[in-house]
Amino acid sequence: MSSFLEKHQRTHYCHEVSIEDVGKEVVLFGWVNIRRDHGGLIFVDLRDRFGVTQVVFHPETDARVHELGHHLRTEYCLGIKGKVNPRPEGMTNYNLKTGEIEVDIIDFEVFSRSKTPPFLIEDDIDVHEEIRLKYRYLDLRRNKIKKNMVIRSSVCHAVRTYFNEHKFIEVETPSLTKSTPEGARDYLVPSRVQKGSFYALPQSPQIFKQLLMVSGLDRYYQIVKCFRDEDLRSDRQPEFTQIDVEMSFVTQDIIFKLMEGMVSKVWYEIKGIAPQTPFPRITYEEAMERYGLDAPDTRFGLELTNVTSIFTESKFKVFNTIANAGDGSLIKAINFKGGADLPRSQIDALEKIVKVYGAKGLAYIRVTEKEWASPIVKFFSEKEKEQLVEKLNIEVGDVILFGAGSKKVVNDSLGHLREHLGETRGLIDPEKDSFVWVVDFPMFEYDDDEKRYVAVHHPFTAPKTEDMPLLDTDPGKCRANAYDLVLNGHEIGGGSIRIHQTELQSKVFSLLGITQERAQQKFGFLLDALQYGPPPHGGIAFGLDRMIMLLSGINNIRDVIAFPKTQKASCLMSECPSNVDAQQLLELGLKVIVED
Amino acid sequence: MSSFLEKHQRTHYCHEVSIEDVGKEVVLFGWVNIRRDHGGLIFVDLRDRFGVTQVVFHPETDARVHELGHHLRTEYCLGIKGKVNPRPEGMTNYNLKTGEIEVDIIDFEVFSRSKTPPFLIEDDIDVHEEIRLKYRYLDLRRNKIKKNMVIRSSVCHAVRTYFNEHKFIEVETPSLTKSTPEGARDYLVPSRVQKGSFYALPQSPQIFKQLLMVSGLDRYYQIVKCFRDEDLRSDRQPEFTQIDVEMSFVTQDIIFKLMEGMVSKVWYEIKGIAPQTPFPRITYEEAMERYGLDAPDTRFGLELTNVTSIFTESKFKVFNTIANAGDGSLIKAINFKGGADLPRSQIDALEKIVKVYGAKGLAYIRVTEKEWASPIVKFFSEKEKEQLVEKLNIEVGDVILFGAGSKKVVNDSLGHLREHLGETRGLIDPEKDSFVWVVDFPMFEYDDDEKRYVAVHHPFTAPKTEDMPLLDTDPGKCRANAYDLVLNGHEIGGGSIRIHQTELQSKVFSLLGITQERAQQKFGFLLDALQYGPPPHGGIAFGLDRMIMLLSGINNIRDVIAFPKTQKASCLMSECPSNVDAQQLLELGLKVIVED
Repeated sequence: MSSFLEKHQRTHYCHEVSIEDVGKEVVLFGWVNIRRDHGGLIFVDLRDRFGVTQVVFHPETDARVHELGHHLRTEYCLGIKGKVNPRPEGMTNYNLKTGEIEVDIIDFEVFSRSKTPPFLIEDDIDVHEEIRLKYRYLDLRRNKIKKNMVIRSSVCHAVRTYFNEHKFIEVETPSLTKSTPEGARDYLVPSRVQKGSFYALPQSPQIFKQLLMVSGLDRYYQIVKCFRDEDLRSDRQPEFTQIDVEMSFVTQDIIFKLMEGMVSKVWYEIKGIAPQTPFPRITYEEAMERYGLDAPDTRFGLELTNVTSIFTESKFKVFNTIANAGDGSLIKAINFKGGADLPRSQIDALEKIVKVYGAKGLAYIRVTEKEWASPIVKFFSEKEKEQLVEKLNIEVGDVILFGAGSKKVVNDSLGHLREHLGETRGLIDPEKDSFVWVVDFPMFEYDDDEKRYVAVHHPFTAPKTEDMPLLDTDPGKCRANAYDLVLNGHEIGGGSIRIHQTELQSKVFSLLGITQERAQQKFGFLLDALQYGPPPHGGIAFGLDRMIMLLSGINNIRDVIAFPKTQKASCLMSECPSNVDAQQLLELGLKVIVED
Repeated sequence: MSSFLEKHQRTHYCHEVSIEDVGKEVVLFGWVNIRRDHGGLIFVDLRDRFGVTQVVFHPETDARVHELGHHLRTEYCLGIKGKVNPRPEGMTNYNLKTGEIEVDIIDFEVFSRSKTPPFLIEDDIDVHEEIRLKYRYLDLRRNKIKKNMVIRSSVCHAVRTYFNEHKFIEVETPSLTKSTPEGARDYLVPSRVQKGSFYALPQSPQIFKQLLMVSGLDRYYQIVKCFRDEDLRSDRQPEFTQIDVEMSFVTQDIIFKLMEGMVSKVWYEIKGIAPQTPFPRITYEEAMERYGLDAPDTRFGLELTNVTSIFTESKFKVFNTIANAGDGSLIKAINFKGGADLPRSQIDALEKIVKVYGAKGLAYIRVTEKEWASPIVKFFSEKEKEQLVEKLNIEVGDVILFGAGSKKVVNDSLGHLREHLGETRGLIDPEKDSFVWVVDFPMFEYDDDEKRYVAVHHPFTAPKTEDMPLLDTDPGKCRANAYDLVLNGHEIGGGSIRIHQTELQSKVFSLLGITQERAQQKFGFLLDALQYGPPPHGGIAFGLDRMIMLLSGINNIRDVIAFPKTQKASCLMSECPSNVDAQQLLELGLKVIVED
């Protein structure tokens, strides 16, 4: 225990001392941000969580204290007592609240010294992320990272306050649980008491939140850690946080309205402006048609237009074949207004992008005063050209980009091409946030490898009432009461109305190739629960990490997590995962048979 | 999707409809709590999360609807539309807000039917806990369990709001982490990416919260799931929830004041009265002396008195030997006022209790008008008796109970005897909540089995400044800046001021027999962090489950957890832990060598 701490209580945080405090004695705690030793005067910018105050060691104030001031170094941790003075004329910094004053040090204590940090505690540093993650406790001193933690804390509190005001109850669901069938791999936890048995860490509290509805809790929420043992992409973490919600006796409309309220509150608290509600809605079908993607960035136009029907009798063989394939293949085009000045080299670059998504090439037309410059246009009839002009509103200066082939490849490639153009060609207002509900997702998609249907959302999702008969006739066409909330091209939440009827649930399991035995073994307790008066219910889950990322305007998910893992699921600071004592494994009845 | 839901939105929850709504049409959702079918009129008590409304099927209102009403059974889930009427004269129930009205049903829909539940959805049922846990979703419909979930949610919100108002920031620490050295066994999570390596689930975020202080976040809190693979006692769960707090630049006084504010707020929100603050403090030493236990129930007196010095020259050999042993052995007594009417059989029963804690027997004196009835008093001198009278304030009608032997056994046995008498002899006002800080815990206790010191709190706890020299001379006597918050004899929180100096941390590790190599391997990242200007810091953690238990006035920890595990760490509902596919283990490079 420090004697300074026993004697002095903090009077201000470092961002609080202002011209109004002149003449007062203050006590501040913090770190040496910058030190300028002029021999006579020693200036220290003292930094705490909130800001910086300039403190000064005057030789005249106390010679002993001044002498000790010479020994301070960057990142030393201090407590100081001093008197607030106005800064000398010409030294004021009006950009800072504390910029008009300085604190003349009367007494101080070095709580701890610091080695030279491996990187500067500044916003713009050029240092490999691995170093930052190894010294995360120093990285978190940087405003750029710290502010994300502050935003995150504020968001969580806003979310919880909102839900509490709307009669939701927060319930903790188990972390040691049973495998859920969300498709991804579970993290397992061996049981010592029952050797050879395992818990699974939850991929989501899906079944538990449905059970809470069966138990009549009516409105549930939780901000909860979930786990997926996936091969990580750059925006995935093995543990991630979800804003999890479930409600009874609701329609999609009721859920949307409440969630729009929540999102508005969060945006207002953090950005000071609430987005306009209700959010627009488009169907999955329409999203694919217009944007090629199910999470469209609706901040800009540049939509896809289906031009298949124009080419059913075309002399251009490639298009003709596709237009007549009868297997859903199609031809779509983007009219990139004013893009005709794109040099050939840039069009080649665009072609590389569509090829990533399986397209064979990128057909185009550059519309100049003089001509339609294009390798393919010579095959087009006048009628085809007229129809294109009409359908795509072609004008001089445009460039038309075509995708042709299977529905999946065309949508995927043009969808991503569109996003690329949006991002790189200045079509996006970075201040704008564009929310959209994507609704009516398909129930199933056919998995060619496994030769069976898989659930697009999850196996507990209810089909749309009007599509119910399709379960028997054409399940692939059946739409679900499932929805995503999309922001600027990123899915930030997704949910559905759930099945609350045992018979329907069994039918869906069977369509998914889940045998009755397997269903009973995996989620028998949910099937049992549905036999005791389950209410109609539905819900949604938001990815908190991604939401914070978008709110903070950054693009590295690790920057919004205090202690993140790398893409190899390691913590570079604590060096986990790590070896464990042989004794520990023995107690679990386990043996390592393959080591990396 | 139900057509009733599409047509009708809920107008009220079932506790809200009152005499003021007479004449209105209302829409309610809920469950059939009780149904009385009088052939003509059918009464249904419709229950939702908040309460009950009586709904009535009148044959005259709609014959078809009335006919359908006959088919309702308990726990069917319904939506109803009806008109609010005053109850007929003589049928009013003034105890309920909804007791003056009934709802005449115009239309309704059965959302789902229910099998007969395995137990009644009522508060006082006689059913084995195993059945309740297997059907937890039904158990949670019972008010007795549900109300604990509501309290829990309110407590969490009150706690978070409080901390947010006091400049704390909520930070999520990792769940997949590295072993912490809290003494208990870790739950392990095998890594697939690095086969043969393991994560550990956190026993507490101890190291991470200290790192957050190093990173300058100043005030941290989190309501967080923690894990311990222990052999479970009745009030332990493998996963439990902690209100976790850490602060920089603080003294014990500052922490106490802020935590008293938090606890007061919680108590006020739930019970409507805030406990008086500041809470009294006693040292560990004094708690042991006066109550025999380090978590004393201070709602009643019946304190222990040390009478060793009275018997140094006693003719009563047993006491004489102990009084002169010189090894810390002692003689303590409890004066149970007015207990002289205890029959011999009850004193025998008390003797059984002290024997559980290692006492060989229970010496006593019954003080009647006539005599000191006791098997031992004949050996006492008059002077000894006089001294007893004075020290214990002995009066006619008292019974004096003695413990004699080693300090540990005497404190333990008389301490528990005292609690037993308090609970069973009506000495405790059940409305009273008695908080006390127990401070100045010892740093170390000597483990006779392992022949070394172990940390009483944890290895990061700072010694008291004035006891620092004892680390070199007599570590067993060194007191720590460690404290517990005790409520009614239960520890509800514990914490300490931490070590923020590397050299001191190394010294403590070495006293604990933790080699430098092992320390570096286990918490090298903390030791590294302490080299970069760590602030002085301290914190505390509260057991949320136990706090809710005490707030709800119940004594089964499973009743405050939505989906608890049994004492064998199983979930009876989902039947986890369970077997996993061989393929899953193969992917982890693991083999089960012992099965239960």
